Amino acid sequence: MPIVRIEMLTGRQDEKKHQLAREITAAFARVLGSAPKDVTITFTDVAASDWVIAGEPLGASATICPPPQR
Amino acid sequence: MPIVRIEMLTGRQDEKKHQLAREITAAFARVLGSAPKDVTITFTDVAASDWVIAGEPLGASATICPPPQR
Amino acid sequence: MPIVRIEMLTGRQDEKKHQLAREITAAFARVLGSAPKDVTITFTDVAASDWVIAGEPLGASATICPPPQR
Amino acid sequence: MPIVRIEMLTGRQDEKKHQLAREITAAFARVLGSAPKDVTITFTDVAASDWVIAGEPLGASATICPPPQR
Amino acid sequence: MPIVRIEMLTGRQDEKKHQLAREITAAFARVLGSAPKDVTITFTDVAASDWVIAGEPLGASATICPPPQR
Amino acid sequence: MPIVRIEMLTGRQDEKKHQLAREITAAFARVLGSAPKDVTITFTDVAASDWVIAGEPLGASATICPPPQR
Repeated sequence: MPIVRIEMLTGRQDEKKHQLAREITAAFARVLGSAPKDVTITFTDVAASDWVIAGEPLGASATICPPPQR
Repeated sequence: MPIVRIEMLTGRQDEKKHQLAREITAAFARVLGSAPKDVTITFTDVAASDWVIAGEPLGASATICPPPQR
Repeated sequence: MPIVRIEMLTGRQDEKKHQLAREITAAFARVLGSAPKDVTITFTDVAASDWVIAGEPLGASATICPPPQR
Repeated sequence: MPIVRIEMLTGRQDEKKHQLAREITAAFARVLGSAPKDVTITFTDVAASDWVIAGEPLGASATICPPPQR
Repeated sequence: MPIVRIEMLTGRQDEKKHQLAREITAAFARVLGSAPKDVTITFTDVAASDWVIAGEPLGASATICPPPQR
Repeated sequence: MPIVRIEMLTGRQDEKKHQLAREITAAFARVLGSAPKDVTITFTDVAASDWVIAGEPLGASATICPPPQR
């Protein structure tokens, strides 16, 4: 019944995400004996400007050139 | 004070989401005696290609071929 | 496939939570046509001292009698 | 190691979000002695039509003018 | 920078969780080229009585024998 | 209306958490003009054995040997 939520920076190809999800599902089966059908994985893309570490956005450009909005 | 987070596949109409939210709010009031103003509900749309069960994305087309949609 | 996460203050009886979950599941079926078996709901209890609104914990006692720490 | 997730209505400028994130990071350092590099903050924008309080979406327009669908 | 959140039924041994986390970390490195130090995984245990599918708690006993609480 | 979720290692005093929450609430008011009553913050404690970075639990002792802590 595990639910796995993965937050990553936007920009990953679906193909890579799906391969990753397959390997994670397999790891659940191998390590915990989970039935694959019980393993749910969701991906959440986070924009670099919405991800901040040490007070600095990973995508700093957004702050350097703030939206004019006039 | 309950906070309810709903993750669903993208594509639902706002109208349906709002009806659902009203019914959930009413259920909190009815079952737990919650004041409706204290019930917060957020919806998070998840793309079918970002939702994986049993190692298979619900929308497999995204990687293999674009959705035909006819 | 909806996943519903409910955060509430600790202290609710399981019986009430389960009734609430049944009604929410029924609302998904009625409003969105979801198959009940596709509706997953999890409850997360949050202690009143871990829930802060307007800068004030809902359970203030912990701050009124702070640990001596000397 | 703290992870901070902030859900807000869409529409905030990145500049404001980043200033907020800097101040939150500083608060962790000041109050808990966290190393800034250990503080991760992510922002999740929620559309007003996906945020419901007291059974009413914060952005009501979507329900006032529902999609025609005929 | 990925953050992975795993919700599972309570009762898994830490040893198994840690093995699973190692394999997931390795999958991120292998598939996406992530640096292991950038992969954060957290486990959240959910009691069977707090996990509801199809309107039925996975741990049904709690509702069959409601807490006496006298 | 912002909702802030803070995951930290278990063991922080409520007093410190509440001070942190007050400062975060003040930062929302100062930077975004949020009304304090609209700022909800929840704390989630995560055990060191449930927090894994680079494939290593932050509290490795839990599986290998009980924390000495003398």
